[in-house]
Amino acid sequence: MATEETRYVEELADKDDFSEWYLDVIHKAEMAEESPVRGCMIIRPYGFALWEHMQRRLDDRIKATGHENFYFPLFIPESFLRREAEHIEGFAPEVAWVTRGGNEELTEPLAIRPTSETIIGYAYARWVQSYRDLPLLYNQWANVVRWEKRTRPFLRTSEFLWQEGHTVHRTEDEAERETLLILREVYQDFIERDLAIPVIPGLKTEAERFAGALRTYSLEAMMGDGKALQIATSHNLGQGFAKSFGIQFQDADGERKYAWTTSWGASTRMIGGVIMTHGDASGLRMPPRVAPIQVIIVPIWRKAPERDAVTTMVTEVEQSLRSAGIRVRVDWREEVTPGYKYNDWELRGVPLRLEIGPRDVQAGQGVLVRRDTRARESVPVATLPARVTILLEEIQQSLYKQAWEFRQRRTYRAQSFTELSERMADRRNLGFVEAWWCGDATCEAEIKTRTQATIRNIPLNQPGGSGRCIFCGRTANKWVIFAKAY
Amino acid sequence: MATEETRYVEELADKDDFSEWYLDVIHKAEMAEESPVRGCMIIRPYGFALWEHMQRRLDDRIKATGHENFYFPLFIPESFLRREAEHIEGFAPEVAWVTRGGNEELTEPLAIRPTSETIIGYAYARWVQSYRDLPLLYNQWANVVRWEKRTRPFLRTSEFLWQEGHTVHRTEDEAERETLLILREVYQDFIERDLAIPVIPGLKTEAERFAGALRTYSLEAMMGDGKALQIATSHNLGQGFAKSFGIQFQDADGERKYAWTTSWGASTRMIGGVIMTHGDASGLRMPPRVAPIQVIIVPIWRKAPERDAVTTMVTEVEQSLRSAGIRVRVDWREEVTPGYKYNDWELRGVPLRLEIGPRDVQAGQGVLVRRDTRARESVPVATLPARVTILLEEIQQSLYKQAWEFRQRRTYRAQSFTELSERMADRRNLGFVEAWWCGDATCEAEIKTRTQATIRNIPLNQPGGSGRCIFCGRTANKWVIFAKAY
Repeated sequence: MATEETRYVEELADKDDFSEWYLDVIHKAEMAEESPVRGCMIIRPYGFALWEHMQRRLDDRIKATGHENFYFPLFIPESFLRREAEHIEGFAPEVAWVTRGGNEELTEPLAIRPTSETIIGYAYARWVQSYRDLPLLYNQWANVVRWEKRTRPFLRTSEFLWQEGHTVHRTEDEAERETLLILREVYQDFIERDLAIPVIPGLKTEAERFAGALRTYSLEAMMGDGKALQIATSHNLGQGFAKSFGIQFQDADGERKYAWTTSWGASTRMIGGVIMTHGDASGLRMPPRVAPIQVIIVPIWRKAPERDAVTTMVTEVEQSLRSAGIRVRVDWREEVTPGYKYNDWELRGVPLRLEIGPRDVQAGQGVLVRRDTRARESVPVATLPARVTILLEEIQQSLYKQAWEFRQRRTYRAQSFTELSERMADRRNLGFVEAWWCGDATCEAEIKTRTQATIRNIPLNQPGGSGRCIFCGRTANKWVIFAKAY
Repeated sequence: MATEETRYVEELADKDDFSEWYLDVIHKAEMAEESPVRGCMIIRPYGFALWEHMQRRLDDRIKATGHENFYFPLFIPESFLRREAEHIEGFAPEVAWVTRGGNEELTEPLAIRPTSETIIGYAYARWVQSYRDLPLLYNQWANVVRWEKRTRPFLRTSEFLWQEGHTVHRTEDEAERETLLILREVYQDFIERDLAIPVIPGLKTEAERFAGALRTYSLEAMMGDGKALQIATSHNLGQGFAKSFGIQFQDADGERKYAWTTSWGASTRMIGGVIMTHGDASGLRMPPRVAPIQVIIVPIWRKAPERDAVTTMVTEVEQSLRSAGIRVRVDWREEVTPGYKYNDWELRGVPLRLEIGPRDVQAGQGVLVRRDTRARESVPVATLPARVTILLEEIQQSLYKQAWEFRQRRTYRAQSFTELSERMADRRNLGFVEAWWCGDATCEAEIKTRTQATIRNIPLNQPGGSGRCIFCGRTANKWVIFAKAY
């Protein structure tokens, strides 16, 4: 299995520029492109098809856990944002403001939502009256805007697409259970099973909390260059927003109480995660469950009489695969060679290629080529749908396994700050560093200044016991993940 | 069938206020509510679930006709809007402007997209090089903003949700075929079959053309008060946008030519159409194919021992209906009576109610009640899924038939302008008036001023021949629909 373990980072090591590879593959695979509006991207059809498959599978999980979708306005009055002090402080520098509507100046500027806790909180205050109204379990799919100075397609754009869940609960305990249910049963399950990206669920430090939250949890994934990507977050908002917006209910005991709220989001940033986790020197590798195209058929012929026979069989095979629920496309282009097509679809990361030429027609077979291992096999036409289904599942598992093994190899334990610093300076072998931390924000900030590494999170899965803080040497009981991050 | 033909308009005649009924039913059925942002609404979960079912079924048709989805930025630079002169003139009074991002004033204000022809045209100019690149067949689902002075939920809101298709073609003929394909095979098919709303496809007059288009086609539906709703539009944009944005291609003959473009949109306005076409004095009536809940089960019991038996059977029935692909919910509330629940779900327009009480448990049956006719029938548990499936289809057909018959009754032919004026003044019997029109914009404008009726469209289905213009009496060869409109 040696070839399977050859990761693109190693392959790309000569190029020495993962960042350039990322922009290049997005451009060539027609996933997205720059728009004439600063920091906003155009998501092209191939990139958007990936997002649609991701959306549907994530949405299914959100609904299966009892949530319903709704839709709130794009605009938030300035005064709303200001009601939660920490919240406005966190978001003010990133807000785009509408000051004119038609030909009139607005008396109060309207923020384009950077996130919707405030306007939703305002409505929840009226929707919640009694404990019988609880919990409220809602979500919305929406565009949001955060005016970013430095942008990168999918990872950080001024406008992005996401879902934001907003729930209201009777007790702190229930809110905490919801926060973790979303983190693990919804996000982690989706990202690991469908996107084939292994993640580490954990608690964010105070410094990295969502503005206005009690506790923020995240899922952290390792990208192909060893950097971390925060790929989804889930917040227990405590009673902060409930108090700012008056979300109160009459409890069974007759008392009026403030509710507990949560919010959680996952965005088009996940697409960047898919690219940077699975891509290799030949381009993208799409996880089969969300791949826009799962099988690309390349018909091959040289002379006219061959053409008819190949066309007939390709059309039949396409139909039989489609009937089996497989997302298949035929590359009928005539102006390019089969070899050109192979490269083109490898670049786009289609999990399986099916070559059908005149000799295959005679033998009643097709040749399947895996994108992940390049392994080839001839398969009789009659069993193609069954074999493709099996291979797609194998590729799905294999991508996960490769990403998991890569993360294992690139996860280190550091005993001293020097060791941590050296790890963060070794660009070719960058990765996650596990170490003890005392919990002091000063140590966290100093480490960041000196190494550019941040505490990604405090994993839910703690080894227990205690050790010495990697920075100050005091007794520490938090086992944390350090990494450079996107 | 007399009861089936009793329409809510008649039933509501005493109230004499269809408009008040509309706002009231939206509020009570929790479809939507006002937001704190002027002219923007909150689409509540029940309203949004309807939209999701509509979206999926319309999106399926858009894809089945060869289109793919993508996503363009929310923002459009002011200079882009100005490139197409007619376009900016039409939209300028309705644009919301972003003038500040974070803490900086923008050098060029950004429009929140009122529609996206301009920014998409800019990209298409780069995507199209050769005739081999054509056609481009793309669509996006997005929010748009038009700063409206007078708003009504779903029908006219400052922000609304829609899909906007944008295509590029080699010839005028191909663009025209696309425009009509969308109008009839996509929109009309969806609206008539799934929303059970009969529509009239036709050409808009020059006065009502989309700003910048060559020809605009629309689908016009009759609402329960006899007014018209323009429920979807499809535009042949000619070469106007291609020339403004430089969408050119090298044709097979080697010449560089301007392309032909189309655009087409349908929005959350369609939800208003569903409400105003099918609603009656008891509330909404949801067309089964898009109903968020197709069957509501109301369990009935008085004493504790009854309760267990009813609960067991209800749970089994719920499962069997769900397994049959039916969208079913059980109203388990204990604090309200069954009678209250009946009203509540009738208000929300759930097509079928299933009552299950102790005697039903003994008889191994449930009682199905249709929302449209109130007809009741007892059905053995084993055959419930099959019977429900049949009834849902019957209700779907019946809603369409009622709406169609209502439109027939309320469609008049006028021989004189006096007759047209009288029809438009008879509020209780308002409807569509068919008449000849000479094609002169002056006649059209005068009729509007005097009667408030507009030409809805020039139906594709023309009787042929000619007559005398309803206003000026000159020879006229356009058979048109006049109506008051939303």
